[in-house]
Amino acid sequence: MLLHLSTWQEVEAYLKQSQGIIIPIGSTEQHGPTGLMGTDAICAEAIASGVGKVTEAMVAPTINVGMALHHTGFPGTISLRPSTMILVILDYLTCLVRSGFTQFFLINGHGGNIATLKSAFSETYYHLANLNLPNASQVKCQVGNWFMCRSVYQLAQELYGSQEGSHATPSEVALTQYLYPEAIKQAPLSENVASSSSIYSAADFRARYPDGRMGSNPALATPEHGKQFYDLAVQELSKSYQEFLTPG
Amino acid sequence: MLLHLSTWQEVEAYLKQSQGIIIPIGSTEQHGPTGLMGTDAICAEAIASGVGKVTEAMVAPTINVGMALHHTGFPGTISLRPSTMILVILDYLTCLVRSGFTQFFLINGHGGNIATLKSAFSETYYHLANLNLPNASQVKCQVGNWFMCRSVYQLAQELYGSQEGSHATPSEVALTQYLYPEAIKQAPLSENVASSSSIYSAADFRARYPDGRMGSNPALATPEHGKQFYDLAVQELSKSYQEFLTPG
Amino acid sequence: MLLHLSTWQEVEAYLKQSQGIIIPIGSTEQHGPTGLMGTDAICAEAIASGVGKVTEAMVAPTINVGMALHHTGFPGTISLRPSTMILVILDYLTCLVRSGFTQFFLINGHGGNIATLKSAFSETYYHLANLNLPNASQVKCQVGNWFMCRSVYQLAQELYGSQEGSHATPSEVALTQYLYPEAIKQAPLSENVASSSSIYSAADFRARYPDGRMGSNPALATPEHGKQFYDLAVQELSKSYQEFLTPG
Amino acid sequence: MLLHLSTWQEVEAYLKQSQGIIIPIGSTEQHGPTGLMGTDAICAEAIASGVGKVTEAMVAPTINVGMALHHTGFPGTISLRPSTMILVILDYLTCLVRSGFTQFFLINGHGGNIATLKSAFSETYYHLANLNLPNASQVKCQVGNWFMCRSVYQLAQELYGSQEGSHATPSEVALTQYLYPEAIKQAPLSENVASSSSIYSAADFRARYPDGRMGSNPALATPEHGKQFYDLAVQELSKSYQEFLTPG
Amino acid sequence: MLLHLSTWQEVEAYLKQSQGIIIPIGSTEQHGPTGLMGTDAICAEAIASGVGKVTEAMVAPTINVGMALHHTGFPGTISLRPSTMILVILDYLTCLVRSGFTQFFLINGHGGNIATLKSAFSETYYHLANLNLPNASQVKCQVGNWFMCRSVYQLAQELYGSQEGSHATPSEVALTQYLYPEAIKQAPLSENVASSSSIYSAADFRARYPDGRMGSNPALATPEHGKQFYDLAVQELSKSYQEFLTPG
Amino acid sequence: MLLHLSTWQEVEAYLKQSQGIIIPIGSTEQHGPTGLMGTDAICAEAIASGVGKVTEAMVAPTINVGMALHHTGFPGTISLRPSTMILVILDYLTCLVRSGFTQFFLINGHGGNIATLKSAFSETYYHLANLNLPNASQVKCQVGNWFMCRSVYQLAQELYGSQEGSHATPSEVALTQYLYPEAIKQAPLSENVASSSSIYSAADFRARYPDGRMGSNPALATPEHGKQFYDLAVQELSKSYQEFLTPG
Repeated sequence: MLLHLSTWQEVEAYLKQSQGIIIPIGSTEQHGPTGLMGTDAICAEAIASGVGKVTEAMVAPTINVGMALHHTGFPGTISLRPSTMILVILDYLTCLVRSGFTQFFLINGHGGNIATLKSAFSETYYHLANLNLPNASQVKCQVGNWFMCRSVYQLAQELYGSQEGSHATPSEVALTQYLYPEAIKQAPLSENVASSSSIYSAADFRARYPDGRMGSNPALATPEHGKQFYDLAVQELSKSYQEFLTPG
Repeated sequence: MLLHLSTWQEVEAYLKQSQGIIIPIGSTEQHGPTGLMGTDAICAEAIASGVGKVTEAMVAPTINVGMALHHTGFPGTISLRPSTMILVILDYLTCLVRSGFTQFFLINGHGGNIATLKSAFSETYYHLANLNLPNASQVKCQVGNWFMCRSVYQLAQELYGSQEGSHATPSEVALTQYLYPEAIKQAPLSENVASSSSIYSAADFRARYPDGRMGSNPALATPEHGKQFYDLAVQELSKSYQEFLTPG
Repeated sequence: MLLHLSTWQEVEAYLKQSQGIIIPIGSTEQHGPTGLMGTDAICAEAIASGVGKVTEAMVAPTINVGMALHHTGFPGTISLRPSTMILVILDYLTCLVRSGFTQFFLINGHGGNIATLKSAFSETYYHLANLNLPNASQVKCQVGNWFMCRSVYQLAQELYGSQEGSHATPSEVALTQYLYPEAIKQAPLSENVASSSSIYSAADFRARYPDGRMGSNPALATPEHGKQFYDLAVQELSKSYQEFLTPG
Repeated sequence: MLLHLSTWQEVEAYLKQSQGIIIPIGSTEQHGPTGLMGTDAICAEAIASGVGKVTEAMVAPTINVGMALHHTGFPGTISLRPSTMILVILDYLTCLVRSGFTQFFLINGHGGNIATLKSAFSETYYHLANLNLPNASQVKCQVGNWFMCRSVYQLAQELYGSQEGSHATPSEVALTQYLYPEAIKQAPLSENVASSSSIYSAADFRARYPDGRMGSNPALATPEHGKQFYDLAVQELSKSYQEFLTPG
Repeated sequence: MLLHLSTWQEVEAYLKQSQGIIIPIGSTEQHGPTGLMGTDAICAEAIASGVGKVTEAMVAPTINVGMALHHTGFPGTISLRPSTMILVILDYLTCLVRSGFTQFFLINGHGGNIATLKSAFSETYYHLANLNLPNASQVKCQVGNWFMCRSVYQLAQELYGSQEGSHATPSEVALTQYLYPEAIKQAPLSENVASSSSIYSAADFRARYPDGRMGSNPALATPEHGKQFYDLAVQELSKSYQEFLTPG
Repeated sequence: MLLHLSTWQEVEAYLKQSQGIIIPIGSTEQHGPTGLMGTDAICAEAIASGVGKVTEAMVAPTINVGMALHHTGFPGTISLRPSTMILVILDYLTCLVRSGFTQFFLINGHGGNIATLKSAFSETYYHLANLNLPNASQVKCQVGNWFMCRSVYQLAQELYGSQEGSHATPSEVALTQYLYPEAIKQAPLSENVASSSSIYSAADFRARYPDGRMGSNPALATPEHGKQFYDLAVQELSKSYQEFLTPG
């Protein structure tokens, strides 16, 4: 059930059954010479939608710009500062808590979002405790990173081994190829690619990873792989969401 | 050309031709008993995509949550505070100016966004002047509200007269029906609907407009009307965008 | 009744009769070669004082610096950033709501303030809903722009036609001449003046409008015109204020 | 030379002679049963204007709301939070530094402003160092508190002794009586008045000082005293301003 | 070399040899019935000092309050909000970058700090890129969590197995016992202790973990263990710091 | 009783006896050629600990970085911006008020902290009034500056006369020599030292006071003097703290 395709009265009815909601979050950032700028948002949105169908959960609109400051050396990248992103998450969740939602499951497509999401959750719990909302103390937030699902990871290892890398990976590229076959890109990829290590400033990132990839070979990706990743991620995150809802 | 379906190298190539970009912005808010929560984002996104095709402009991912605090008395509404939204716009534009973009055309689907967008533009111009970017002084931002296009307004008057109202209007509902025929909603609509007047707090809004509509009769909407509105808005805003790009 | 010339006990007594207050807001910004830096604050203050007399309303001290970032390319201009101005308005209103005021009528002398005032009102309603104040949900804010009064506009058209322009207008200069005849300025005015169009950064503004005027010919102003504008604005805004107070 | 009664071209001419500017700052807060809410702003504005005449200095518009949170238990008091006031001062000074001003002399009418002004100056120096302004390192700010002038203090001791107190004092009331003889107030004053001690929250303040006075007997004030205070303060602060301008 | 026991001229001399600095960061939060409130700061400070001796690195004063909002249901806990902590780190690092430091190694004693530290680093890199500092692009930050050192982890497993738990652990308690033998605490510990799971709000935390421990048995700790942990952590983090300094 | 060496259950027990807490606050900033960077924090921490013993008060961890922006022209100085420091103090106090503390006595070692501490207290009282805490209106904060104790001042005059100066003073250096005899520094001190006057930007400060001292001769300091200062400050501030706790 997609929030943006629902009416407020349908939301009201849903809230009588469940107080859980799934929020997809991605990023708009460079993904190497053949990866789409929207890769992380596209993947999160599709998987969240799939999980929503399996679990009959409400799915909020996708947050398609996240924390990608380290990629801003490449044109087209859009990022929030962490301090801004904390406020965005706080505003979203506060509105939804006022609506009656208390269980927030963020399906995330971008590793760079994780730290700031955690910070934002802490900030939000504290903020909500200052308001007089009856349900504030029940609020729970959790991040489900599709690319860190055990099954996804195993398949990526099996298909790509060390060429999976850690940014602009064949697994995420495959998933976007499955979802947007009309936007499969071809571009020369140097054989040598810096393997991933620490991440500092945007200038440093661009110097270390000149074409944007971190140790990955996205040329290995296929739409068929993408479907496999999609199915695994939906299955595993559906289970995670259901466990998240279960009290205990 | 959709930014999220492009690679960074394609963005780099685009920037050699044009420094303009279209950013769709909507809202996630109640739209009466039969309007979709995502109405404003859906309309902005579709029209922006259409304008992008006509003008060969780059189109950024849609900002699907805006300034809708006055609707937060209805479940499902998500809003940024104006102060947060200013930071979001400032972060977006600063990243894109660093990329080389200087002309920002926001295609907007929500009247409640206009004031904060203007504030955000002022804040951003000032912020950019403090950075040492060669292109800061060329930066220009403009809002194109599809629902305020002359041709759109005329058609709405013709089709609905005073029943167009000012929130959850038949014109915007029609547009979403055209775009998402599978999500056309039916719900009883009281004949009496408060005509629109001033807007204050969320509590006051809900008290004045108990089902969320402001003077509108969305039952008049049809998908066919929606197509007409879409075509007119794309045409008129394409022209506006081209004029915006023209120096002078 | 001027707040700054009242005692707290007089304010307390007033609040038993009315919860309305008028807040004049202007700007300190260039107004062309012959307009005063304080034009917008001077006009708003005088008209608010007049409306206060007619309606027996409390009038707060004038906010004499507003949102004028686009004028900061001219020396002497002082501006708040929109984000700062939102906090200023929020602080003012929160204090006054704690005092017992709930109806805020801002008499405004500067077009550049309008967007940020609207943003600030939204931010404030939301903020107040988080506090435990018994009167928070009754709070209402409205802007009355003296220069947009129908009667004022008509007189300006009549007297100046297209030479009214949109910044450093003869109508506002006339009003300051009436109020401060000792500060009537003479300076050469080029015949050609850029007609008003869009406003972007301060640097761009100064380049487009080199002497600060936007399509106006303030040499047409006279103190006598000023008195006419004053009377019309006081009359029309007094009526607006009384309607604003009337429940419905 | 009053900034608000000058044109931008007059400001430009002034800046060739001097980079100094006087900014009056007061407060809008309770001043006991007979003191005006605007006392601190009224005094600061009048004295600043006097100093401006003596020294031929530019005088900015008065900041008439300052840091008076501890008085917000009394109706009509308006205060900025310290964090807001820091931003206001930073915005003012940054605009004026861009104009070419570098020496800021704040004539202050309210003890409660002093700490936050000092914080704001530190914040501003640091902020300016991050911008690329040629004159940033020459910027200097100083506070001149009229009520702490040696000559003012001596006269207050002579006239009122211990009945001067520390809030709603006869000296400041006298000054407003001189400036606004039409607004001299009469109200019963209890003989017992809590002598001043520490200041904590607004609720605590009101409990300790139930009519708003701190150890003062404003019934001793006369307009003639007010004139004496005015003359002394103008004389002493004119000298302070001239010393402030002198390099060394 | 401890910064707080150095003169500025010694710092200046040090900077000619190295641009690296170690910043210990901990927390002030409940650590169960027998753990010290300052455990995380005490451990970080001692280990940082040890690493400083081994590596001849400059060691900054300890940040002894971090992100512990989830522990604020227990008296004595002090925490920054994540948004505040980001500003604190940004201010620290900006000052030190102006001094000439570029390599920041944070020795951390509290898991709850990690996410916000990462957010703060991103925010700081971006902020520094906006300033005109010659060394901004060389800035690198890294977190070294002593409790996550491989050698520390192995010893904890060996000594305590599953009774190590994840908060108020015997390993950290042992370390404080070694450092402050005079402050070894005795208190009854329930045998049943909730094993660690997810962390949400402070109220939820206190409800799940009523005495503050998460799956741990700190009664197993001894000062001798503490010395072992200390030695291992110093050794391993000294190596990490040296690798961090090495370009590549 | 040191908070960081206590358990939460000990804090809980303490709160049944007293709601007072001492918070030492210093700075990390240049103190001339022979003074330690940590002088202000070292002195505040030691004296606070002494006062804690005399009065059996709880002593919080030391805030060792404060408002020292004017010293940031010297390497090694770390400072918060005033706006950040306000948030830090607000976060600390809010957490401790939730714990049950209401009387906050800050033992301060740095003159530059005073203004921002006062601002922070005002901000905090106001913030607390917005929360629903039963004890918010009882909250009181006070600053005790050890270097401004009458007895300390008198001894400094007696021992050093005008060579006490106002920064990097022999009295504070003596106190650190007493506390850290192993860190007594020797460095050539020019005979001429600029006497203290106003403080503006960091660049201006360094230009006026090239070795960091303000009118002081720290070569006069001895550890024995330091002990005398310590004893006097502990005695006087213990009395101040006890008076602070006494209602009235």
